Amino acid sequence: MMNRVKSFTCVSCQAQYSSLPSTYACPACGGILDVVYDYGSIDGGRFVLALADNPDRSIWRYEELLPVAPGAARPKLRVGGTPIYRAPRLAEEIGLSGVFIKDDGVNPTASLKDRASAVAVAMALEAGAATISCSSTGNAASSCAGCAASVGLPAVIFVPERAPAGKLAQLRIFNAVVIRVRGSYRDAFRLSREAIGRYGWYNRNAAINPYMVEGKKTVSFEICEELGSALPDWVAVSVGDGCTVAGVWKGFRELHDIGAISRTPRILGVQAEGSNPITVSFRTGRPMQPGREDTIADSIAVGEPRNPVKAVNAVRDSGGTMIDVSDEEILSAMRLLGRTTGVFGEPAGVAGLAGLARAVREGIVDSSAGACAIVTGNGLKDIQAGIRAAGEPITIPPDIALLERELARVAPSVLS
Amino acid sequence: MMNRVKSFTCVSCQAQYSSLPSTYACPACGGILDVVYDYGSIDGGRFVLALADNPDRSIWRYEELLPVAPGAARPKLRVGGTPIYRAPRLAEEIGLSGVFIKDDGVNPTASLKDRASAVAVAMALEAGAATISCSSTGNAASSCAGCAASVGLPAVIFVPERAPAGKLAQLRIFNAVVIRVRGSYRDAFRLSREAIGRYGWYNRNAAINPYMVEGKKTVSFEICEELGSALPDWVAVSVGDGCTVAGVWKGFRELHDIGAISRTPRILGVQAEGSNPITVSFRTGRPMQPGREDTIADSIAVGEPRNPVKAVNAVRDSGGTMIDVSDEEILSAMRLLGRTTGVFGEPAGVAGLAGLARAVREGIVDSSAGACAIVTGNGLKDIQAGIRAAGEPITIPPDIALLERELARVAPSVLS
Repeated sequence: MMNRVKSFTCVSCQAQYSSLPSTYACPACGGILDVVYDYGSIDGGRFVLALADNPDRSIWRYEELLPVAPGAARPKLRVGGTPIYRAPRLAEEIGLSGVFIKDDGVNPTASLKDRASAVAVAMALEAGAATISCSSTGNAASSCAGCAASVGLPAVIFVPERAPAGKLAQLRIFNAVVIRVRGSYRDAFRLSREAIGRYGWYNRNAAINPYMVEGKKTVSFEICEELGSALPDWVAVSVGDGCTVAGVWKGFRELHDIGAISRTPRILGVQAEGSNPITVSFRTGRPMQPGREDTIADSIAVGEPRNPVKAVNAVRDSGGTMIDVSDEEILSAMRLLGRTTGVFGEPAGVAGLAGLARAVREGIVDSSAGACAIVTGNGLKDIQAGIRAAGEPITIPPDIALLERELARVAPSVLS
Repeated sequence: MMNRVKSFTCVSCQAQYSSLPSTYACPACGGILDVVYDYGSIDGGRFVLALADNPDRSIWRYEELLPVAPGAARPKLRVGGTPIYRAPRLAEEIGLSGVFIKDDGVNPTASLKDRASAVAVAMALEAGAATISCSSTGNAASSCAGCAASVGLPAVIFVPERAPAGKLAQLRIFNAVVIRVRGSYRDAFRLSREAIGRYGWYNRNAAINPYMVEGKKTVSFEICEELGSALPDWVAVSVGDGCTVAGVWKGFRELHDIGAISRTPRILGVQAEGSNPITVSFRTGRPMQPGREDTIADSIAVGEPRNPVKAVNAVRDSGGTMIDVSDEEILSAMRLLGRTTGVFGEPAGVAGLAGLARAVREGIVDSSAGACAIVTGNGLKDIQAGIRAAGEPITIPPDIALLERELARVAPSVLS
């Protein structure tokens, strides 16, 4: 192995392995594994300096802390390098001293999941796989299919029946074999697991394939690079399977471990009230129990998350907390984000922001704090939710008198 | 004026003006104006060198050739810096030696129009406008609304009745006042012109506001920077109002004028068969006649383009040509692009590629040539078209036997 991966540690029993078992799970206890690098061999100061000279704006600029061998084949989409915005009007509206918005919805297939899928496709190529597969609520699916298409790797994708049309259209355009499973995400996951085992496809399922967290952590690397010493006190992100929040934290922790940053933010993990098994586990300290998948935020409607231990550990290690938000709060956050920043997030994409707003109201996050909300997916993925959040346009015949009457009703200020 | 704009030239009668008339049009003949810089004061070699050291990846890295005063207020969305991909499998399928895909669908509001709207909002702020307005088939609208929202500038947007749901959802989320006009794009344009005149809003209408071409030309600046000496023989782009193709050519021409590039590509302007008044004018040499708006490519369904002279001049000056494509060719190009590159373009977004494929088949573009197709908008803007192009997914209950039967039918290779 030409990269700096040193070992794999089980997040449940802490057993260590020098190579990744083919089934991914810990052979001792069945737990999820975590990738460990030879951190001692990486000098934080030199790591940061090298970045300053690196013209590559994609996730591959961080290859020293990625599991892909240098020079290995990679998907051709440019993943990462997404913008971060200072949002003073938004901060004022939710009562915080400062808020940054990290817009991961402008990734090539329009979600943060591209970061994981780019690593997955690179690992599948390295393994010589003939087909890649995953189950997903939609974004992992479309990102996997897009990255696979960019290198001509066949993809078989399992989605739950409820996956929004935008994500299905992406999958089909990327020429994936799309299996829409009548039932929940859980049903789609189980069928994919059975099929992957039977046909020997490369398994991109995020929660159990430990490399996916490695791709996702690059969002935090970017936040650190972009904000430098302005790194905020809190970073808010939505939680579904638990893999993304684990990646977000791992990114900060690793940069801290190698000495590239001097402090780490606290993580605010946000679930939807109608699908909150990880929040419940975090609060009670008890093992996660499967629950409902009842929220407008389809990407985080995960009744049986596969990565609760990693997620809970991540939030706890960061000194952060977890919180739930209602669908109404999510829709309100979509409007707030769009109105104040010009960023259109999908429901799950803005759940982190919705949770941040609630955490401020409840005094969990102090109003003097600075925060960053990661927008994990583009609102164009779920247009119906956008219209539900913001309402229909005004429709009139081309008549100036009718126009003036309507403007006087809905926006009198533009007439003055 | 702190920028390098020297004058405004009428594209119809060549009259020159030292400042921009408030109605935009040429006072002498009513023609469209074009922005002229003091090219002699800009050294091409120094321009290129300065770019190498400029960390700003947005369109503002080119401010020396933009009409916005240095240091002036600008919208906060990061516009431009979109990726360009080498597409060898696509090139092989259409029979060209090499093809690049410039994916402008990953702009903040998911289309090339962000480049123009960013300049529009900056100019509106400079003018002290209280409201910005435009009519648009959809992308100019959503980009205008998004850029305006990022700085809290109210926006009134006119769209034709047929604007796809994705674009409407964006507009509403960005809190624009959205007037959906029963009728065609022509009707929406006329009502907007009347209202803008009556209420004194800043007019972002692309074809008549000469600054919009200035934003759009940055896509060509990026292509030159990214490809350097590999600049292709042809650049293909879809044509609606005529403003984008004029901008694409102006970008190449200006870099050539200041000596930053030694040769320019030929422009392939592509319209839809069901809405092709500019192609007809180009072919016949006669003034443009209004026509139909009958194509799946809603963004270029423009029955009465406002910029035909600029468009025809641009294509002719470049030594290029114009071509039409059918809706079937557009749908086919959507599949081809997605399957071979992982990029999902909207129908108008891939019309340039569809035209390129046809131009190769017809011998207009030689198979030994290299080309770049600009993807002007993201497929997530028009999901129905995506499904129409690529077909519905397979829906089954969670049952491995049923799965295997379906896979054997649609994708037997993944079973072996």
